[in-house]
Amino acid sequence: MTIDPTRLAPMANAIRALAMDAVQAANSGHPGMPMGMADVATVLWTNFLRHDPADPAWPDRDRFVLSAGHGSMLIYALLHLTGYARPTIDDIRNFRQLGSPCAGHPENFELAGVECTTGPLGQGLAMAVGMAIAERHLNATFGADLVDHRTWVVAGDGCLMEGINHEAIGLAGHLKLAGLNVLWDDNRITIDGPTSLSTSEDIPARYRASGWHVVACDGHDHADIARAIDEALADPRPSLIACRTIIGKGAPNKQGSHEVHGAALGADEIAAARVALGWTAPPFEIPADIAAYWHLAGRQGQGAHAAWRERLAASDKAASFTAQMAGELPPLNGFADYLAKIASDQPTVATRKASENTLQALTADVPAMIGGSADLTGSNNTKTSSTKPLIAQDYSGRYLYYGIREFGMAAAMNGMALHGGVIPYGGTFLVFSDYCRNAIRMSALQRARVIYVMTHDSIGLGEDGPTHQPIEHVASLRAMPGLTVFRPADAVETAECWQLALKNANGPSLLALTRQNLPAQRSEAGENLSARGAYRLVAAKAPRKAILVATGSEVALAIDVAEALEAQGFGADVVSMPSWEMFEAQDATYRHDVLPAETLRVSIEAGTTFGWERYTMPHGLRIGIDSYGASAPAKDLFAHFGFTVEAIVPEILAKLAS
Amino acid sequence: MTIDPTRLAPMANAIRALAMDAVQAANSGHPGMPMGMADVATVLWTNFLRHDPADPAWPDRDRFVLSAGHGSMLIYALLHLTGYARPTIDDIRNFRQLGSPCAGHPENFELAGVECTTGPLGQGLAMAVGMAIAERHLNATFGADLVDHRTWVVAGDGCLMEGINHEAIGLAGHLKLAGLNVLWDDNRITIDGPTSLSTSEDIPARYRASGWHVVACDGHDHADIARAIDEALADPRPSLIACRTIIGKGAPNKQGSHEVHGAALGADEIAAARVALGWTAPPFEIPADIAAYWHLAGRQGQGAHAAWRERLAASDKAASFTAQMAGELPPLNGFADYLAKIASDQPTVATRKASENTLQALTADVPAMIGGSADLTGSNNTKTSSTKPLIAQDYSGRYLYYGIREFGMAAAMNGMALHGGVIPYGGTFLVFSDYCRNAIRMSALQRARVIYVMTHDSIGLGEDGPTHQPIEHVASLRAMPGLTVFRPADAVETAECWQLALKNANGPSLLALTRQNLPAQRSEAGENLSARGAYRLVAAKAPRKAILVATGSEVALAIDVAEALEAQGFGADVVSMPSWEMFEAQDATYRHDVLPAETLRVSIEAGTTFGWERYTMPHGLRIGIDSYGASAPAKDLFAHFGFTVEAIVPEILAKLAS
Repeated sequence: MTIDPTRLAPMANAIRALAMDAVQAANSGHPGMPMGMADVATVLWTNFLRHDPADPAWPDRDRFVLSAGHGSMLIYALLHLTGYARPTIDDIRNFRQLGSPCAGHPENFELAGVECTTGPLGQGLAMAVGMAIAERHLNATFGADLVDHRTWVVAGDGCLMEGINHEAIGLAGHLKLAGLNVLWDDNRITIDGPTSLSTSEDIPARYRASGWHVVACDGHDHADIARAIDEALADPRPSLIACRTIIGKGAPNKQGSHEVHGAALGADEIAAARVALGWTAPPFEIPADIAAYWHLAGRQGQGAHAAWRERLAASDKAASFTAQMAGELPPLNGFADYLAKIASDQPTVATRKASENTLQALTADVPAMIGGSADLTGSNNTKTSSTKPLIAQDYSGRYLYYGIREFGMAAAMNGMALHGGVIPYGGTFLVFSDYCRNAIRMSALQRARVIYVMTHDSIGLGEDGPTHQPIEHVASLRAMPGLTVFRPADAVETAECWQLALKNANGPSLLALTRQNLPAQRSEAGENLSARGAYRLVAAKAPRKAILVATGSEVALAIDVAEALEAQGFGADVVSMPSWEMFEAQDATYRHDVLPAETLRVSIEAGTTFGWERYTMPHGLRIGIDSYGASAPAKDLFAHFGFTVEAIVPEILAKLAS
Repeated sequence: MTIDPTRLAPMANAIRALAMDAVQAANSGHPGMPMGMADVATVLWTNFLRHDPADPAWPDRDRFVLSAGHGSMLIYALLHLTGYARPTIDDIRNFRQLGSPCAGHPENFELAGVECTTGPLGQGLAMAVGMAIAERHLNATFGADLVDHRTWVVAGDGCLMEGINHEAIGLAGHLKLAGLNVLWDDNRITIDGPTSLSTSEDIPARYRASGWHVVACDGHDHADIARAIDEALADPRPSLIACRTIIGKGAPNKQGSHEVHGAALGADEIAAARVALGWTAPPFEIPADIAAYWHLAGRQGQGAHAAWRERLAASDKAASFTAQMAGELPPLNGFADYLAKIASDQPTVATRKASENTLQALTADVPAMIGGSADLTGSNNTKTSSTKPLIAQDYSGRYLYYGIREFGMAAAMNGMALHGGVIPYGGTFLVFSDYCRNAIRMSALQRARVIYVMTHDSIGLGEDGPTHQPIEHVASLRAMPGLTVFRPADAVETAECWQLALKNANGPSLLALTRQNLPAQRSEAGENLSARGAYRLVAAKAPRKAILVATGSEVALAIDVAEALEAQGFGADVVSMPSWEMFEAQDATYRHDVLPAETLRVSIEAGTTFGWERYTMPHGLRIGIDSYGASAPAKDLFAHFGFTVEAIVPEILAKLAS
């Protein structure tokens, strides 16, 4: 401990002052949490956190996650005080204003040092679990010389009450992630009032039941905080450090109540707090001696960083480590062979199985890929021979049995991707994308390279019935900004879409895959046609009267419909459209060539028609399902819902006649 | 106990035989759970469950929830064997076939006796929490003479591992729901294999930490099962009854492994099981003596039912109880007065506040309404003076502090609505509809009268930034079949939409409401114009060149845009469209009148443009946001994202000129 312990109190008060002043200036924000956790954060950032403000991207830095993201001023103050280039004091003055990197909630794409975007409660901690998994895996792969760091989380009651917390800590406890330490802001206040309004839970007992070590401390006693953290570090389990705090500590009249949670304190209370804290500096000014101590704290990691650089330079794994951390892909040679083979073989295969076959090649080519499933391994077909289980006894594995934890899985994958060095993919049934929907959104918002393998993508799953049959899911995922959705039609398209997903380094991808077998549509694999988003799979032979736009399992049906139309003298193109997003990115000439304006357009997709007016025009025809499904064998359902040549052809002919 | 205990074993084997045979006939389904839990279910349904197969709608029946819905053959067998009119043995023969009420997962809309639709894991148990809340509330309101029953749940490891389980049991423990008893099928097998693949949790300890009583038993020892249930009933807390079972018990070669979870056993194994169980009857036949015992078990509740009918007949609350259980609404007199007043007052008010004002009237008019919020009471404005807290010490209250448990709240509301006698509404931020999305879907699939109060419905929430700003949410909820989405524009529309939501007895409604103030648009309240879904709020004065279709907070902007266009000689209608679903239900004449085909249409909505081609046509104009938001004051954001007269008018003029 190089910082004089008697200096910690004024250092913590610097956080409090910045939090009060920034929230007051914005007249918006959450002062209570930063003020309440200022002491804990000060002890952590002066004594334990290993980082180097001069290089926020140092791969072996500790990860610090502010899961209680509403208390964003805590991390802005810490980054500023320890000497990160941003936020500057002007950034903090502009807290919550357009253009300031000091957003209402911390955003990883705005500030280096913010490891992940938080605010949606519970997900920060769950992402930290993913970071800790990535750390252990890379440690097992590249050795402790290159990777050996910790993951720290500050979490509030909200993070712990959310359902995802159960999933996250269950996974972390099972995997024995000793490097994960959660500092729980135990202030017993939520937005609605005291926690006793809504919960009677014994949180430490629950964490112990999930395989965690638990230690408590007085969150305003610096020595006690340090003692508790030391105890946590000595334990071989992940640790919950229960920090008993007073929310808004330092605001003499409002502290300890929910009034201090989410609103500016007001000028009077701030004045009173300045007196109570003995803080005489003007707003947004830090006395030089306190600033110096904070900068000293910020420089403490330089030695470790320099030593690490030396170890890296000396390591025979330096090149592969650096490339993997940078997210570079090795040559996809096995994949290329596989693609050539299936283009030639033209297998009839479910796209979930085609995905497995693709993964078999890709996971052999790309050691950074870590797969998994939320307890549907044999259904999602996510496991390959290259991906041995990643378990507590062997972190070098590359396959995670996430358990029945869809939301926890998705958030963990976000954390893994943001940690860097690994490319996570994971599966569940498409309908249960609902369970992890906000984490998918957070993948997109954070620009995280996460690949969702969502199988059983329509009524084609059959007997399990409407609870398991996606209807609105593909559309509602297409509506999500920043997510690329793929619904491939056969084995070649599945491989192409996987390749595109893997190359999509700055955002998530989602593959919607069938349970049921589909015939091959493609016999060449030269150009990745799926990269166009949509392409003319079959051109009309008779004069073109209709364009059938289909995705996934309905492409084969569209071809049959087109043949039936051709037999009656009506020419019909079939357009396969595996990805709306990629089609939208094409130039107008290409889009117009695929979808010329003058022709009747018919969409065929076994899901909601919602949104298809974009391509069919409102006066076109949309073959879809705008109700819930039913329980029956798949072929009966397709017939029942009108997905047959017999049902569709007359609709098209009637439309053409009208 | 009127059933000879020695008969329980063959009675349980009847369940096993039906499960084996039905899954085999369908060649699809899950035999493992029904066979594993056959003994527990037999003890429960012969000795404890109070019901009357002759009247599945008896309000004071016990509720039985098969949370592990994939084991649907368990409940189909029980309903059939105890004498419910359906399923017949032919229904069971047609398990998982189109038209059979014996769907892959139990569906409340297919079979009386199925209290709720299950399959999405964890939600059955969470709905049962809502049922138990409704029961305690109605007990406190109408007395134990009319309402005093229990809620039973059969749940598997999946239900317990899902995040929602944490939320559900936390709420149940906090509310001390003694009548709730969960029979946990502790078979230590999941789809991927042994539970030890993915979890190391001490489940009993976790439940105890959440305020539950826990008792264990041998799930194949009938006396031990009865002992454990007796112990649970004696405890004043909700109870977890851990039933140690062997999955697929009775299938001699496959039991105890995940192979028996989700596939037919096959003819050989079924033959072997018949030998092992001593079951000689042909498929789908129940020996007469065993059938007779089951029917005897089914008649055991008749006496209690008759006594209850007598108590109801003698009760001075009979009429109000019956009406409330039937979901009838009393006259909305206070609401009518309120509506007339605001039409006259024309307040400038946020629609979340207008919602509160509406609720103030409605909750006084309608005693069945039970409100709540997931810890955002003061933000969602869901609390009224009529709705005192519903707490463990006073179940007569009508306001639930759900805690930071969005998914648990939504599922609990489904359970409350399906229990009957209460009309639940609950709030969170619209962006966090993601957290409870599948429960919203389950409201729709189950046709449950649940009202979602989703506030902070756009970038208009301002500084909290993109994690809190809905973009794709309104569209993605519109895409969900069976859900009615409302986005009202002012106080009158908010009141109208609330009225429509309340009258929507057979499905869920969702109100998307603003944080920010909005001016009044409407000064009359004669006809409920929102019931039309969309209507011409302002007609063009100059010759009509454009139709501006706006929702919610953008209606005021549309009016300003229209005025600016009129000032330049371009006539523009303004159409307010609070509900797509209700507009779609109008006849073609009305829809054509509001949106005549020949005019340029412009949608203005502060969310994704996804789907708006339906009304604007692809060649129309869509003013929206197809990226994530940002952190800044609301007015800065609206300007930044182009929601100003200055930005929109030139776009329209350019379009008109092209």
